[in-house]
This record gives sequence, C-alpha cells and structure tokens, in this order.
Amino acid sequence: MGWRARLLMLDGLAPVIDDAGMLVWGTLADCDEDADLVFLGMMDEKPCFAAIPDEGATGPSYANPQIWAAIQALAPPDLALYGGARSLVDWHARHRFCARCGSPTKLAKGGWQRDCAACEAQHFPRTDPVTIMLVTHGEGEDRKLLLGRQPRFPPRAFSALAGFVEPGESIEEAVAREVLEEAGIAVRDVTYIASQPWPFPSQLMIGCHSHADEDALTIDETELEEARWFSQNEVQAAMEAGRDGNGPFAPPPPAAIANVLLRWWLDQGK
Amino acid sequence: MGWRARLLMLDGLAPVIDDAGMLVWGTLADCDEDADLVFLGMMDEKPCFAAIPDEGATGPSYANPQIWAAIQALAPPDLALYGGARSLVDWHARHRFCARCGSPTKLAKGGWQRDCAACEAQHFPRTDPVTIMLVTHGEGEDRKLLLGRQPRFPPRAFSALAGFVEPGESIEEAVAREVLEEAGIAVRDVTYIASQPWPFPSQLMIGCHSHADEDALTIDETELEEARWFSQNEVQAAMEAGRDGNGPFAPPPPAAIANVLLRWWLDQGK
Ligand SMILES: [Zn+2]
Ligand SMILES: [Zn+2]
Repeated sequence: MGWRARLLMLDGLAPVIDDAGMLVWGTLADCDEDADLVFLGMMDEKPCFAAIPDEGATGPSYANPQIWAAIQALAPPDLALYGGARSLVDWHARHRFCARCGSPTKLAKGGWQRDCAACEAQHFPRTDPVTIMLVTHGEGEDRKLLLGRQPRFPPRAFSALAGFVEPGESIEEAVAREVLEEAGIAVRDVTYIASQPWPFPSQLMIGCHSHADEDALTIDETELEEARWFSQNEVQAAMEAGRDGNGPFAPPPPAAIANVLLRWWLDQGK
Repeated sequence: MGWRARLLMLDGLAPVIDDAGMLVWGTLADCDEDADLVFLGMMDEKPCFAAIPDEGATGPSYANPQIWAAIQALAPPDLALYGGARSLVDWHARHRFCARCGSPTKLAKGGWQRDCAACEAQHFPRTDPVTIMLVTHGEGEDRKLLLGRQPRFPPRAFSALAGFVEPGESIEEAVAREVLEEAGIAVRDVTYIASQPWPFPSQLMIGCHSHADEDALTIDETELEEARWFSQNEVQAAMEAGRDGNGPFAPPPPAAIANVLLRWWLDQGK
C-alpha cells in the first residue's frame, strides 16, 4: 500500500502550505521508516496518514504565529483536515507514557488509542467540551450584547465569553457560572445555538445564548482585559467592516464559532 | 481547620450509605495521615474532602453492582455530590504518572490538577462529551421512537442510543454518525434538548432529537443487542409502568437523562 498512501506534511505541528494556499501531501518515503503514523482516513481512495512529531505542543496554539496564520489561510475542508490531524498527533506526542503506571505506551487502532503493555490500561484522545456564550441585555432594537477581550487577542478584537465545562456541570450550568465568574452578572434562559469542533488543541465548542436582567459588570481581570456591552448597530457595523476594517471592534474570524454566533444574534433582530 | 472538615466516606470508589439512604461523612481522622485529599467544596460552612483510593476504576461503573445500586438509591443532591467526588478521586488514582514523560505527578490546586515536577506538564481531569439521541419516524399520533438495548442492560430495558463525540465532530455530526453506525439509518434535523453530567466515569451527556425518513434498521450487533421502533402508546405505557412495572419495556431510571428525553418526547405529542 506504501506507494499509494499519502502523508500529510507537517513542520512540527504546523501545516506545510503551498503557493495556492493548499495543504502539501507527500508519500510514506517522506518520513522516517520507524515513524509512528496515525490514520487520517481515505481520500480519493488513498489512505492518508500523519507522522507523530518528537514534541507535542508546549504552549497554546494561539501563541504559535505559524499555526494562527494557517487557521486564517486554509479553506474550511483543509482546515478541518489539518486541525483533526494536528490534534491527534499532538495528543500522541504528549501521551507516550501511561498515566496509570508510568510505563511507555504503544500506538493502537491506527492512532485512535494507546495501549500500556505493563498494566493493560487503554488510553483515548480527549475532547474537552467548552461553552461559548452570547449574553443579551434588553429587548428589541435597544438590546445590547456582552463581548469580552482576552489579553492574548489582537488589538481591537472582541468575542463571546467562553470557558471549559467543569466536571459535574451541565452545559447550562457551565454558561451561568462562567458569565458570573468572568463578568459578574447572573444570566437566565440559557439556550443552545450551535456547536463546532476546534482542534487547537481538542475542544468541542458549544455555542449558547442567555439573558441578563442587570447590566453592571464586574470583570475578572485575570481572564478578561475588558468586557462591555455593544449595541445592535455596533455589532452590525463591526461584522460588516470585518476583521481588518474600521468597525467599532474587530469581530471573530469567519472560521470561529463566535462569528456564527454573532451572525445568529444579528438575525434575531430582523 | 482539621476538626471542622468533613470527609466523604468511600469504600474503594463506592459510597458508604446509612440506613436512611444518605451519604456517610467522617472527619479527617478517618483517613491516613498521608492520604491525598481532593477538595469537594464548602457545605454548611465546613470544607469537604474525599481521599484518593489506592486503585482507580478497573472496569466500567455499570459492572460494579455496589455503585449501580447507589445510583438508584441516592437522592439527587447526594448522587450529584458522590458522583462528582467519585469521578475526581478515580481520575487521580488513574493519573499518578505524567503521560508526557512517565514521571510521578503530584496533586495540585486542591485536587483539580496534577503537576509533573520533571517536565512541568500540567494535567487536568477530563470530561468526555457524549451524545444521546432520540430518533423519530413519522408524524403526529403515528410517530414512532427508536430505542435500543445494550447487552449490559437489565432484562426488558430499552433506552436512547448514545455514543462519544469523536475528535473533529460537531454535536450534530456525532448524532448522525452514531445513529448510522448503530442502527443503519440516516437522520436529519438534529436539535438539542438538554444536557446532564454523568460522572461514571466523567461524561457530559448531550441529549438531542432527530428525524429519520426511513424505518428499516441495520443493527450493529457489537454495540446493540436489539433496536426497535416503539409507538407513542408503547412509550407512554412503559413510562407509566416504570422500571419495575409490566409496561412494553423497562424505561431508563429517573436519574438518567434518557428518562428526561423520553418525557420530553411524550410532551411533544400532546
Ligand atoms: Zn500502564
Ligand atoms: Zn512529565
């Protein structure tokens, strides 16, 4: 099968991208003979693989400009494919040992599992559920939307608040706790809007909407640099101006679920 | 603080329950002096802890009759408290080593983290998103609901199909893939209904509804012993008869989200 198989070319954990902005594919000859390979699926009747790098991610993906640029440059199918592959090889690179007994583990099931020969534990890639939420205050044309700025955001960028679902919480409880912790306000009527995988490193983003009866904010400055209410007109203008425009703020990039949520919120006002 | 602190009494990973069906609490004198403790929160102004057992879970919780009996016996607040504690101490017991480098790790942040002194990796408890889904065929009073039986279920028990969200999937994609894999039918119009934590071991259950245009089933017999369509009258009769009654099937226990989903489905028909 070797000559037909395709290998996703990676530079560490970053994608290799050609002049046309597409992912570059090689063959199995392009990796070490003893490289550990994960199976990505069949494409054009050819099995596709990625090789596990020596080192997994040592910091968050947004801190790696090469990866952040790729997220913005790749077309959605390539981004989904690269993201899934990156998430999987990164997990393998960071899970070479058994958390239960400390022995080395071996890749199994084409890369969807690692097995410990010493204690027989099986280990599986993880996906962390994260809630990302719109908070509305007021009704009709006077309604306002709560958005925040994390310290790592590019200048002028605002987005929906977000946070990991903690053990023991429902989605709705996670939304309410997160808004209370980060912005100091209580919300009610949490509803689900949409979900999206976000493989940097391995999140399931769960987009929700909620209402706040109060509008006085108390910001947790370890999480947020700033949070404020934006009017319908401000959100509309920011989305129309786009990320590099001169709107009231820089909206989230089109590939992020936060962008979908903001568009959903504007549609509700029509 | 020692004399005021409370210790949740555990027998391995199972709860200790008194004659009144309540969780039993001790003091820090009831555990070894060098036991690793996780902080569960404040109750009645007293800090509450649980001690990490020597061994984590070695099989699924449903295979442990002592734990399964507790799930059915405990009142919801005690079940939530025990479940959260069990999930956390089990995670610690199964993560005493660093998956990145194999060195021993140490409990940190009151039990919400483990740190590796050798490579400085931080490890966090995981929560796995799981979709659990109703599938409806037909409309109005003629509609039917798809339920399945896993081999481990008690006699006559049927419940909603369920499965882990895989890396790279949205909630909606996971629902469609899972129904296709387990029952061989395509679904459309996936909607979210409700969510619930299920700490055995550490899932976030995400309850959804979907429609099937076809009703011919192809069962994956490694996952399901049986799957079939039930009429509205059959679901109604089963829910009224309860788990120990003589309805058309034994419905899911009240503490499970599947029970909530079945009640939701019946309400839609009113
Ligand atoms: Zn092991
Ligand atoms: Zn380490």
